[in-house]
Amino acid sequence: MSLTIKLRIAPTISHFDLNRKTQKNPVVLRTPIYHSNELSTSLLFRTKKMAASHVIKSSLIEPDGGVLIDLVVPENQRELKASQAEGMEKVQLTKIDLEWVHVISEGWASPLKGFMREDEYLQSLHFNSLRMKNDDGYGSIVNMSLPIVLAIDDATKEKIGCATDVALVGPDQKIIAILRSIEIYKHNKEERIARTWGTIAPGLPYVEEVITPSGNWLIGGDLEVLSPIKYNDGLDNYRLSPKQLRKEFDRRQADAVFAFQLRNPVHNGHALLMNDTRRRLLDMGYKNPILLLHPLGGYTKADDVPLDVRMEQHSKVLEDGVLDPETTIVSIFPSPMHYAGPTEVQWHAKARINAGANFYIVGRDPAGMGHPTEKRDLYDPDHGKKVLSMAPGLEKLNILPFRVAAYDTVAKQMAFFDPSRAKDFLFISGTKMRTFARTGESPPNGFMCPGGWDVLVKYYASLQTEEAKATVSA
Amino acid sequence: MSLTIKLRIAPTISHFDLNRKTQKNPVVLRTPIYHSNELSTSLLFRTKKMAASHVIKSSLIEPDGGVLIDLVVPENQRELKASQAEGMEKVQLTKIDLEWVHVISEGWASPLKGFMREDEYLQSLHFNSLRMKNDDGYGSIVNMSLPIVLAIDDATKEKIGCATDVALVGPDQKIIAILRSIEIYKHNKEERIARTWGTIAPGLPYVEEVITPSGNWLIGGDLEVLSPIKYNDGLDNYRLSPKQLRKEFDRRQADAVFAFQLRNPVHNGHALLMNDTRRRLLDMGYKNPILLLHPLGGYTKADDVPLDVRMEQHSKVLEDGVLDPETTIVSIFPSPMHYAGPTEVQWHAKARINAGANFYIVGRDPAGMGHPTEKRDLYDPDHGKKVLSMAPGLEKLNILPFRVAAYDTVAKQMAFFDPSRAKDFLFISGTKMRTFARTGESPPNGFMCPGGWDVLVKYYASLQTEEAKATVSA
Repeated sequence: MSLTIKLRIAPTISHFDLNRKTQKNPVVLRTPIYHSNELSTSLLFRTKKMAASHVIKSSLIEPDGGVLIDLVVPENQRELKASQAEGMEKVQLTKIDLEWVHVISEGWASPLKGFMREDEYLQSLHFNSLRMKNDDGYGSIVNMSLPIVLAIDDATKEKIGCATDVALVGPDQKIIAILRSIEIYKHNKEERIARTWGTIAPGLPYVEEVITPSGNWLIGGDLEVLSPIKYNDGLDNYRLSPKQLRKEFDRRQADAVFAFQLRNPVHNGHALLMNDTRRRLLDMGYKNPILLLHPLGGYTKADDVPLDVRMEQHSKVLEDGVLDPETTIVSIFPSPMHYAGPTEVQWHAKARINAGANFYIVGRDPAGMGHPTEKRDLYDPDHGKKVLSMAPGLEKLNILPFRVAAYDTVAKQMAFFDPSRAKDFLFISGTKMRTFARTGESPPNGFMCPGGWDVLVKYYASLQTEEAKATVSA
Repeated sequence: MSLTIKLRIAPTISHFDLNRKTQKNPVVLRTPIYHSNELSTSLLFRTKKMAASHVIKSSLIEPDGGVLIDLVVPENQRELKASQAEGMEKVQLTKIDLEWVHVISEGWASPLKGFMREDEYLQSLHFNSLRMKNDDGYGSIVNMSLPIVLAIDDATKEKIGCATDVALVGPDQKIIAILRSIEIYKHNKEERIARTWGTIAPGLPYVEEVITPSGNWLIGGDLEVLSPIKYNDGLDNYRLSPKQLRKEFDRRQADAVFAFQLRNPVHNGHALLMNDTRRRLLDMGYKNPILLLHPLGGYTKADDVPLDVRMEQHSKVLEDGVLDPETTIVSIFPSPMHYAGPTEVQWHAKARINAGANFYIVGRDPAGMGHPTEKRDLYDPDHGKKVLSMAPGLEKLNILPFRVAAYDTVAKQMAFFDPSRAKDFLFISGTKMRTFARTGESPPNGFMCPGGWDVLVKYYASLQTEEAKATVSA
């Protein structure tokens, strides 16, 4: 979710209205999408696993492919595998490659069992989905919108030669994993970028920092990770795997889990939306809907607020009572960020299916950013939710599109934007919020809880101190 | 199919081997594609409608969506519709827009009923497919890899205002069609180009000639075409609609139809492949396989051989007995050419489903071309057949990938390339062939039938005469 909210409001998006359906078995049919464009009236509730009875399910939604992938080698085999890996050709991982190993190993990308081979890569690039195999070779479709690939350079390819298995070496030079039955194929960066981002304009953060410096080959294969990935940054406790999250939802006897993806501090507009969602789920007859507040923890661009600061800010939001700790789980989603808009939002939603969430909240311009070379949003702000609602493989997920929230200068609080009194609303973009925090200026009362705001002010103050030091020492 | 054949042979592609299956009900299972890359061994025969019995079906393959779309207004309503159209706001079509009206009106793009609205456009761009609606809003998937859209400029959008229907005006200023229940949405050219071609490099023919000069808006809606589209170029007789083709296949009692898409002259390598396909279909037990030799008739780039010359060349190939007129139908496929490789080959195959072909031949680098700014093919020459074999919505089509043919200098004829004696083979690229024809030099004996070759030589001679005239008069 981007904080970049501007005054242009899409006419087609209305706040999702769960009140319209309060019967015991609320199965709301999806609006036909063929030759129709009535997303505004579609509620997109697709699952029939609703809260009619009080039976608590051990799993509210099946992982993609039916089985949650877990690629961490069992403890009793680790020594053996580690010694096998020692004898293999080594492939050096970057910090971001390691984040992807983490993501794949815990099953966020289920049914993916390793870095993509070419067949998977091509399906992902062209169809944003993978076809599973079944007995006759024709299986169901799972969503897979981002290529999850490992690049190697010419020298590494040469070194690997005809080997079928390789060892993956982390940034600390320790062996992290084995990649088996490998396949090496060409890394056409231009095509990958164009099909993933819909542009090849210079200045896309993931492209510049990850893809451009990477090698001209991709290596796919089946992953075996020698031990769980840890970062030792004091936040590992928040890094619950999909398996752990599913267990926690069961422990709390959740009968609905709604996920909120974010990479920014939580303001009261976000909170309004999350609380409103919960209220409406209760109205529908759910007894115990749980919010998965799920900040992205992998690579983000330089001017985003760093993970540790965001985590502190999120905890203040819970302390200040803006969100209810009893019905909220804060956990870190370990994926790196692509800033690839409608393509990436599918990944964000799909990964949460695997983590056990059966409702997904989507707002304006998800995973979007400004165009790197033109004065406009890179993506149409409505395309994310439209594409998400039509994406192959996401049919079982309940997608909750919502209206944009803004600061209501009359009520002096964040509220859903009401076009009939547009002049009463103030839109505070991410850039504006950061400027406030940097200059020490306060945002309007009610924009963010004071404890959360303090975290941001302190972060930007520390940045300025560091910059000042750097200037003095230069 | 491109004539650009070079010495780099992909190791994974083997000539399809129908001999392996000669039982009466030859249902060959598709190789699982999930976490596997064994396209080399996959035969990709997917239909069960095989030639077990001698019952001739009125249709060998169902059109996409179950019903062949026909948007030409019945004669008894034309006057009424024409007078309605007179009162509507007018939208001016280019020559290529008109080709798309033709394509849509005859059902090549079934189930598409008009130019795409935004939901269809987004699905096409992101998923290369459309989801059909059924009673609960979840229908089957049809392939739709190219956005089939109509662009308008700001002034036209302004003029249309709140109208729900518009009249489409041909290049000759006559009203051609009505577009009903219109939807106007933004034409983000950069994103459209990047997602369709996998590059935004300058020099893509369709982009430069069609997209770049077009307006900033797209207009979708339901099409009603006031009378069948005709070009009056002496070739309209060859422009059989999908309905006419299906009727012709029935009349000939075809029990298999294999389509060959091309935009180049037919050389003996192509002929070898088509004849080989027929022989193998007979070996499988089919009694009357019919070849649909289906040259593309819409927009092509300036240095391609023009349609009328190609049609003359094709007729010589039949006259000279290289292909058998008894079992071949030559017809024109009215689509414009995108040169979008793996994205476009899906369109080429999908349109032939609608025309009643249940087998589709795919070769090296289909719909490909050289990269406009780099010294390489724009697409990996193997990606076209790989993407095609995995494309959503094409499961019912039997896809026949084939090995490249080259000139065998020992046998003195075109033959399937044999890597074990690579030095005996001569690869004659399209550029080389055109150079031969332009300079009056003969290609090796057996490259193309003499009658067909003469057509090309005459065409290039006439070009040179025109160029000379132009130089003199300049």
